[in-house]
This record gives sequence, structure tokens and C-alpha cells, in this order.
Amino acid sequence: MRASPTQEEIRRHNLGVLLRYVHVKGPTSRAELTASLGLNRSTIGALTADLTAAGLVREELPRDHGRTGRPSLVVRPEHERVYAYAFAVEVDRLTAARVGLGGVVLDRHEVPRGPDADVVEPLAAFVRRTESAVGADTVCVGSGAAVSAMARRADGRVYLGDAAELEETLAAGLTAALSEFRKAAPPVAVRNVADLAALAEHTRGVAVGCDNVIYLHGDAGVGGGIIAGGRAVTGHGGHGGEVGHMVVNPQGRGCGCGSQGCWETEIGEYALLRAADRDGTGRQAVSDVVDAARRGDVVAQAAVRQVGRWLGFGVANLVNIFNPEMVIFGGTLRDVYLASATQVRERLTRMALPACREHVRLRTPDLADDAPLYGAAELAFERLLADPLDAAAA
Amino acid sequence: MRASPTQEEIRRHNLGVLLRYVHVKGPTSRAELTASLGLNRSTIGALTADLTAAGLVREELPRDHGRTGRPSLVVRPEHERVYAYAFAVEVDRLTAARVGLGGVVLDRHEVPRGPDADVVEPLAAFVRRTESAVGADTVCVGSGAAVSAMARRADGRVYLGDAAELEETLAAGLTAALSEFRKAAPPVAVRNVADLAALAEHTRGVAVGCDNVIYLHGDAGVGGGIIAGGRAVTGHGGHGGEVGHMVVNPQGRGCGCGSQGCWETEIGEYALLRAADRDGTGRQAVSDVVDAARRGDVVAQAAVRQVGRWLGFGVANLVNIFNPEMVIFGGTLRDVYLASATQVRERLTRMALPACREHVRLRTPDLADDAPLYGAAELAFERLLADPLDAAAA
Repeated sequence: MRASPTQEEIRRHNLGVLLRYVHVKGPTSRAELTASLGLNRSTIGALTADLTAAGLVREELPRDHGRTGRPSLVVRPEHERVYAYAFAVEVDRLTAARVGLGGVVLDRHEVPRGPDADVVEPLAAFVRRTESAVGADTVCVGSGAAVSAMARRADGRVYLGDAAELEETLAAGLTAALSEFRKAAPPVAVRNVADLAALAEHTRGVAVGCDNVIYLHGDAGVGGGIIAGGRAVTGHGGHGGEVGHMVVNPQGRGCGCGSQGCWETEIGEYALLRAADRDGTGRQAVSDVVDAARRGDVVAQAAVRQVGRWLGFGVANLVNIFNPEMVIFGGTLRDVYLASATQVRERLTRMALPACREHVRLRTPDLADDAPLYGAAELAFERLLADPLDAAAA
Repeated sequence: MRASPTQEEIRRHNLGVLLRYVHVKGPTSRAELTASLGLNRSTIGALTADLTAAGLVREELPRDHGRTGRPSLVVRPEHERVYAYAFAVEVDRLTAARVGLGGVVLDRHEVPRGPDADVVEPLAAFVRRTESAVGADTVCVGSGAAVSAMARRADGRVYLGDAAELEETLAAGLTAALSEFRKAAPPVAVRNVADLAALAEHTRGVAVGCDNVIYLHGDAGVGGGIIAGGRAVTGHGGHGGEVGHMVVNPQGRGCGCGSQGCWETEIGEYALLRAADRDGTGRQAVSDVVDAARRGDVVAQAAVRQVGRWLGFGVANLVNIFNPEMVIFGGTLRDVYLASATQVRERLTRMALPACREHVRLRTPDLADDAPLYGAAELAFERLLADPLDAAAA
């Protein structure tokens, strides 16, 4: 029950609204900003002048101006000058990117993540290398990291590590690396891989305009990023979305979490490889099974169908609980879903209530495997977009 | 990405904030309002004057004013003059109440709901009787109804009716009844029983101050009212929260929804009565089994323990998905939970991730069986609290 903001708070809020608009939608004319944001022309002009003075946007004549009359200036985010760092720590790989305001990837680096390997140093090295090369007039406004607490041992088995410890180590290490170059660098914000992939697809991917979305991320285990009523469902301690540990098969196999018959024991990497009677680990091994099924390998086909049925089983449960308008299959689940869409849909039809399932769309991510990385960038920009002048001055 | 409100919108917003405060917290001094709402004294004074002129609040000297100096006036909602209607349609009973601003029940009526019985007329009769008796200076600001689409046949079996049709019939019938007395009566707002029970407990029950809450409502079937980040999770079409149709036992019994092994087939009224080898139906029959277990009936004890284990199973899944700070057991599940808390906790410990479960509190409703009715009243007041002067003038 908070009361209303002051005039200065309104101005700062509006600065954020305008900057967020061009960050998400790209270069936009003043005329479109006036119409879309419900502010008058002079207010848009004043806000744009403030953001220009802060070096966050610049104004240009439109390229295709052919009509008579005075053209509406185009407001463009300063994507080369203003940037954030984005990192993703997944089971088998580490990715890092420097991302300009507006979501433009300026530099990107990816390395495999070995068993029991240090995750901080490869990412910190990217920061040091990149910071040594960028111009003096650039501004780093934040850093975000998408983290999976799952890790792989030398024997190929994955285990659920201590998420809180990993997040702390990562944030401390990366913040320290950046602080060598940027005195006032804000601390690195860390969040779950699936939550950030959902944020990315909701902001600039397949789920733009959808307010009720479930993003399922397969990466050895299975996590969920959930958006309900346009906002992330993260729970009391930020640990929500652990859909991979929803028990679907009480008579099923033991799970690394200590429970039995968790969804990820039926649809994770192991489940598919075991059903296909194959060795190997990781995303490539999953893709190989799906490819073999496509080429007619009957064992692989049966494995894909079996996993697809369990995939549909859990999706039906989530559809009954959330009544989403879209479910997105990301990571390893992208390939699995595309190869077993028939089984997924059949289960959904049989198990979900008509009212809950009739408008749901099943999709794969627009941002492909970089959805978590893009989401980490959005997390990094959040502080700037909430209060542009304060964050830009820091 | 909406831009900021105008001055007039701010004033109206602040009127709603102030009125909501006294509606929820009860009579409040101007001094406390100034401190709690972050507005200055003169603004509070002006807002209170507007609300007083509209007949929504009145100001009084505090009863226990003993200190020296000028006392801070107490702002009190006009609970006898301004009221709403609340209705609850449950499987075996119908309830109706006239509820004053501030959540004070002024009149209340309850009738059993017979098999295949008309639900509109008993509630409409309450409206006509009540409206004939209230004073001419009273204002009805809205009506809300909590509805379960489950109904009972003459043989005692329940079935899932057409929720949309029931909601439409109910809204039309009750709106018509009220229109005989109130020309500008707003239409009756209808929502699911569990959603409204969750709203009531969150607003003025056991979950006040908790932003992540799951309310489980047992009434033959099982529904869920979910609050995440302080807001109701209702889904794309408003059909979310169907946790009773989460499949927990793939080898389980057929469910009325057409699926198999749904949670409600293991924890609903039938499940308990069948396990206890008893006839009978309804809430009393459930209570009888729980009472028998308490008195030492070994068959009833085994039945309660079995249902308790399945109750904990589903709660563990929901805790992994939502990371709530509180789970509330309402309707028939209240008695079942109280008698099987050991089994519920044991399952929760075994199946839910430590990070998701470590801060969760398991509770029963403060508002007992009237949680849905109180929630319907909150729904009815929503329009007034969003824009007090507009709604009060209607």
C-alpha cells in the first residue's frame, strides 16, 4: 500500500521508461515515443535531452526520410559506448559477452567447461582482455550471470552443487576482475539459468507480448523459468522454478537431489541416453540420439518417444497449475521436443484440463542456446533502466 | 512500459491507498496514516476530507486519548453505510453475506446445497430480503462470488460442471436480483473458490505479510489459490491453480476430468472415505473419519496416514515449483492436514529441495470455512478501493 511518487521520482521513472523502450525496441522516432508512452512532445524532448546529455542515447535524422515537412528525430541507444557484461555458467560450457545497450552483442567468448573445472578464471580472463581493449569513453553499467548449480564430475556424472556458494564465488571473482579497470563497477548480479532464459525470451524472443510463460531448460538436469502475469515467479527465497524436481513417477529412479522419480530422471540427459542404450554425455550426445531417431534408428526412436511422453506428462501438470499461454523448450529439451512433439501433445491433450490447455502454444527459443546469456545481459541492464541518470553517473 | 500518471490520477490513486489502508487495518489515526503512507499531513487531511464527503469514512476523536496536546483524529470506514455482497457456492453449501467496508460481516446466511439444486435462487432471495431491510442511506458498492464448478449428484458422486456457464448464470441472476433495488448496481464479479480464499487469508488472515502463498482448498475435489510475489497467479485465461489435477500417481485411479492419478484422486473426499472403508459424502463424513482416527480406530488411522502421505507428496511438488513461504490447508484439507501433519512433513522433507522448503510454514486458515466468503467480499470491494469517488458516486 505505497502512496504515489514525487515529481522528481516521476521524471526518473519516465527516463527509465523511455530508455527501456529504445533498449528493447531499438531506434525509435520521437513521434512513436510520444504515441507509445502517452507523454506529450515536449516531455519526450526534455527526457531525450537528459538521456543524450548522459551519453545514453543519441538523436539522428531518420535514414529514409523522404516526406515533406520536418522529420521526427530518431532516438538510438548508444550501444557502442554503453554496455554490460553477461555470463552464463552451464553444465558443459561457459560463455561471456560484452553486450551494448539495446542488446547488441559486441564481443562473445565461449569455452567448454571441464569436469570439476574452475568457472571464475575463464570468465574473469575475458573481462580483463576485453577491458584492456575498449575505449576510454565507454561505460560499463553492470554485469549479470546466468548460473546452473549442476556440474559434471570426471566420470561424466552430474551433481547438484551448492548454488549459494557458487553464486557467491562467481559474483566475488567477476566483480574483482572488473574492479581492476572500473573503480565504481556495480557488483555482478547472479540468477538461475532458466529464470534468465525466460526473461530473455520474454523481452526480445519468442515470448514477447506473452504474460504467462514457462521456459523449460534442459542441461543434464531440468529447470524452469516461470513468468506469471508478466512477472517472474521466483518464490520466497528466489529458489522457485525447480520443476525438474517435481515427482512424476513415484516408482521411478533415484534422483541426485535425494528424492525419487523426479521429472528430470525421466526427461534429462541420462534418461534419453539410457533409454537409447548409449554412452556419452552432454548436449552433443542428446543431439546424436535425436539425429539417429530421425535417420530411422528404432532404438533411438523408442527412446525419444518415451522421453517425449514424460516430457508431455510434466508439461500437462504445469499447464494445469499455471494456465500459461506459451511453453518454451530450451537447451537439450529443444531437440527432444522437436523430435517428440506428437507424444508431448498427446499427453497434454489427455492430461490437461481443456480450459487450461486450449490456448497454449508450444515453442522453441528464438535466442537458441544464448537465451541465458541474453537474459544475463537484461539482468545487468536492469539497474540502468530503473534509474538511468543515477546508474550512468556511477 | 507505461509512462507516469497525471496529478489527478495520483490523487485518485492516493484516495484508494488511504481507503484500502483503513479497510484492511481498521480505524487508523491521521498520524499513523501520515507515517505509513509516506504522504504529508496536509495531503492526508485533504484526502480524508474527500473520503468523508463521499460518505466512505468518518473521523472521530480517539477513545483512549489521555495525553496532553491535540489528539490525532481517527479515520474509520463507514462499515454500516457502505457495504458489499459476498457469496460462496461450494459443493455442499451456499453462503451469502452483506459485508461492511472494513470487512465487517453485517448479515450472513447459509443453506445446504442439495444434489442438482439451483444455486441462484437461494442467494438471490437473501439479496431481496436484505435489501428490503437496509436503510435508504446505505450504498452497495459491489458484489463478489466464490464459485466451485464441482457439484454433487443425487447418488452422492461429484462431477466437474461447466465453470463458465455456472459463473455466467450466477452473475446474471444475482445482478438481476440486486438491480430490483439498486439501479446502478455493478455486475457481480465471480472467481474460483480457492483463489478467493487465498486472497482473503492474504488480506486479513494467516498470510498477511506473506508474498508467496499457496492455499489448498479441499471440497470433494481440490483446488489451489496461488499468490506469487504478492500477486495472484491466475494464468492466461484465469484458469490457473488447478493443482488438484496435477498427476501424482501415473498408476492411479481415473479422475472425473478424464485423466488418471490426479492429486485429488489421492487426497479428495473419496480417497479418504474409500481408504477408511466408509460410506457417506461431504465435509462431515471427512471429519468423522478424522475423529475416528483420533479416537483410535486403526482403519481410520491408516486411511488418514495414507492420504497424508499423498498430501505431502503434492505439497512437496508445489514447494519445489513455487518456493512459497506458507502453505495453507483449507476446506476438508484442514482436518486432514491437522491429523496427518507428521506424514505431510515427512514427505516434504524427503521430496522437496532444502532451499525450497527450509522456510516454508504449514498453516490452517484464520478465517476457517468462511475464507472463500471473505475473499468474495474483497473482490467486491476491489472496484471501490481502486477508485473510491468514482465507485461511491455510481
